[in-house]
Amino acid sequence: MTPDRITAARSAMRERGIDALVVSVGSDLPYLAGYRAMPLERITALVVPESGDAVLFVPELEASRVSTSVEVSSWTETEDPFGLIADALPATGTIAVGDQMWASFLIAIQERLPGARFVDAEPMMASLRIVKDASEIAALRAAGHAADTVADHLGEVRFSGRTEQELSRIVADLLLASGHDSVSFAIVASGPNGASPHHEATGRVVEPGDAVVVDFGGRMRGYGSDTTRMYVVGEPPRGFVDAYRVLEAAQDAAVRSVRPGVGAASIDAAARTIIENAGYGEAFIHRTGHGIGLDAHEQPYIVAGNETAIEAGMAFSIEPGIYLPGRWGMRIEDIVVATTDGVERLNRSSRSLRVVE
Amino acid sequence: MTPDRITAARSAMRERGIDALVVSVGSDLPYLAGYRAMPLERITALVVPESGDAVLFVPELEASRVSTSVEVSSWTETEDPFGLIADALPATGTIAVGDQMWASFLIAIQERLPGARFVDAEPMMASLRIVKDASEIAALRAAGHAADTVADHLGEVRFSGRTEQELSRIVADLLLASGHDSVSFAIVASGPNGASPHHEATGRVVEPGDAVVVDFGGRMRGYGSDTTRMYVVGEPPRGFVDAYRVLEAAQDAAVRSVRPGVGAASIDAAARTIIENAGYGEAFIHRTGHGIGLDAHEQPYIVAGNETAIEAGMAFSIEPGIYLPGRWGMRIEDIVVATTDGVERLNRSSRSLRVVE
Repeated sequence: MTPDRITAARSAMRERGIDALVVSVGSDLPYLAGYRAMPLERITALVVPESGDAVLFVPELEASRVSTSVEVSSWTETEDPFGLIADALPATGTIAVGDQMWASFLIAIQERLPGARFVDAEPMMASLRIVKDASEIAALRAAGHAADTVADHLGEVRFSGRTEQELSRIVADLLLASGHDSVSFAIVASGPNGASPHHEATGRVVEPGDAVVVDFGGRMRGYGSDTTRMYVVGEPPRGFVDAYRVLEAAQDAAVRSVRPGVGAASIDAAARTIIENAGYGEAFIHRTGHGIGLDAHEQPYIVAGNETAIEAGMAFSIEPGIYLPGRWGMRIEDIVVATTDGVERLNRSSRSLRVVE
Repeated sequence: MTPDRITAARSAMRERGIDALVVSVGSDLPYLAGYRAMPLERITALVVPESGDAVLFVPELEASRVSTSVEVSSWTETEDPFGLIADALPATGTIAVGDQMWASFLIAIQERLPGARFVDAEPMMASLRIVKDASEIAALRAAGHAADTVADHLGEVRFSGRTEQELSRIVADLLLASGHDSVSFAIVASGPNGASPHHEATGRVVEPGDAVVVDFGGRMRGYGSDTTRMYVVGEPPRGFVDAYRVLEAAQDAAVRSVRPGVGAASIDAAARTIIENAGYGEAFIHRTGHGIGLDAHEQPYIVAGNETAIEAGMAFSIEPGIYLPGRWGMRIEDIVVATTDGVERLNRSSRSLRVVE
C-alpha cells in the first residue's frame, strides 16, 4: 500500500511544483510509510525527493521499533540529524513540510538550506488523504460503531453525584473496552460547563437537572472515532427540550444534504439556517464539522467559505451545537461518509436526548 | 507567578536580541500563561513583544475554557488567525518561535512577515525553565513518589500469561490511581522486545524466564514523572544478573556524580565508563538522561558533548541501559534534582531486580 501512496505523493508534488517532501510528527508519516513518529525532541522524518528513493530518518534507539517499507537511516545520539536530513533535501527549490512537524525542526532545516523555499505540505497531503479508500472507510466504520456502544452503555450509567472527571474516566474505559486502541479525548461538560464546546472535565459534581454534553473519540486500527451525545439527569432545564428539537432537525438536515458535488459550505449552511431561524444563531459558535481519518481533525472542514466539493469517500463530522453561557450547551455529532449517491452515517446510536439518573 | 515569568522572558529576549516571542502547542505556553493549547489545527498562540502587552490568541469556541492572567483575544471560525497574530508581531527583526509549534503555523506566519527572521525559542525558554523553583521541585517530587507506588504495586502483579498490552494498561491504571492526572507513556517490553528502548507494547504474551523493562510516566499538577524498573518472571536469562549488577553500579555512579558545577557530559561519562569497562559499551545505545518538568523531555540533556554545568534546581533522568538485540534489554531510571550540595533522588522505589510470577 505505502509504495503506491509514495508514488501518488510524487505525482501530487510534480503537479504542484514541489521538489521534495519532508514529514515528521503527525499522520502524514503513517499514511506514507506505515510508521508514526514519537512526539519527542529526537526527530523522525521521512524525506521524499521528487525523484530518488524515500528515506526515513530515525533515532538509533528507536530503529528497532520501526516497521516500514521504505529505506531506514538511523542517527546516533551525538550526530546532527538536521544535517543528515538537509543533505537529503534539495539546496534550492520548493520543499513541502508536514503540517505538524515541530517548528524547531523546521527552523533547524531552514538554517541549513537558506536557498530553499518552504511550504506547508497540508494542501498536497490533503489532496491524497481527503478521499478514503474502502479499507479506510471500513476502519472508520468499525471505530464509529465501537464508539456507538460507548454512547449506549453510558445511558445505563448513573451521572448524578459523579464528577465530570469520574465520568470522563468511565467514557475512556468504555472506549478501550469497545476495541479502541487509544483514547483521544473524552469531554464531559455538565450544566453551565456544557456551554464550553472544548470543555476539559473538572471536579464539578453532576446534579439532577443538569444537561451533560459527552463528546468522545479514540483511535482503532489507526483511524479515529468522534461522536457527541446528550444526557440529562432527570428533568431537563427550562427551554432545553425545545432547543434540542431544533438541534436534532439541524443535524439531520446537514447530514441529509451530503452527496457528491455539494459544497462543504452548503452543508454548514443547512444546519446553520435551521438554528438561526429558531433564534439560536449567535449560540452556534463553531463550524458544523471537520474531516476525520488518521487525524482527529483534517480536511474537509465543513465551514462557511469552504467551497470544496464533496466526493464519495470523504469522511467528516456533522456536529452543530447551541451554547448558552451560564446555562447549558448541547451538541449532536455523527461521523458520516459521502457515498456515490448520498451519505452513510458511521454513528448509529440514538440521537435522542437520554434521561439518566 | 506568570507575570513574573513574562517579565523574565522579556529580559532573556533583550539579552538575546529577540524582538518578539510566539509560543503555541507545548509547554512554553503553560509556563508563561498558565494555559495549555489543544494540539489541533485551530491555532492558540501567545505573543510576547519585547515591549507592549502580551496577548493570547485563542479560537472563539475555546475562549470559555481559558484561564490566564494575560490578555485574551479570540478569533472566530471565519477569521484568519495568522493575519491577527502577524499583526501583533514586528514586521522586521527577530521572532523566537516555541519549539513545538506546528510547522504549518510557522509557515503561515512566515508568509505574512517576509521581512522578519525566525529563530527557535527553545534555547531562550530553556534558560528560564531549566532551573526549577521550590514549587516545581515539590510537584516533581510528588509525581516521582506517586510513580514509585506504581513500581511497588507492579511487584505484586502476575506478569506471566499476560500480554505486554494488558500489563501496559495495568501500569496506566495504577498511574491514575496513584494521583497522576494523565498517563504519558507505559512501556512494557518483554523478553527480546526489551532490547528496543522505546518499544510499543504488543500482544506478546510474557513467559517464564522473560526479563521485562517497565518504563512509565504521567503528569501530576502539570509536572512529569518518569521511572524505569526491571522485573523478571522466575529465573532470569543467562548472563542477565551479572549485567544487571553492572547497570546498577553505572546508574548509581551517575547519580552520585551529580552536584552543582559538574558538566552534563561528565554525568553521562560516569555511567558509560562503567558499562564500557564491563564490555557492554556497544549495548548502551542512548544518552544517560534528559531534563524533565512541564515537558517529558527538556534541557538539560545528559549526553556526550553537552558541557552545560549543572545548577541546583535542575531536574533530569539518569537512565542507563544495556540492550542485546534478540535476547533482552535492561534499564534503570530515576529522576534526580541537583541540590546546593549534591543530589536528591525523586524516585525511591527499590532498584533491585524484582522477581515476579
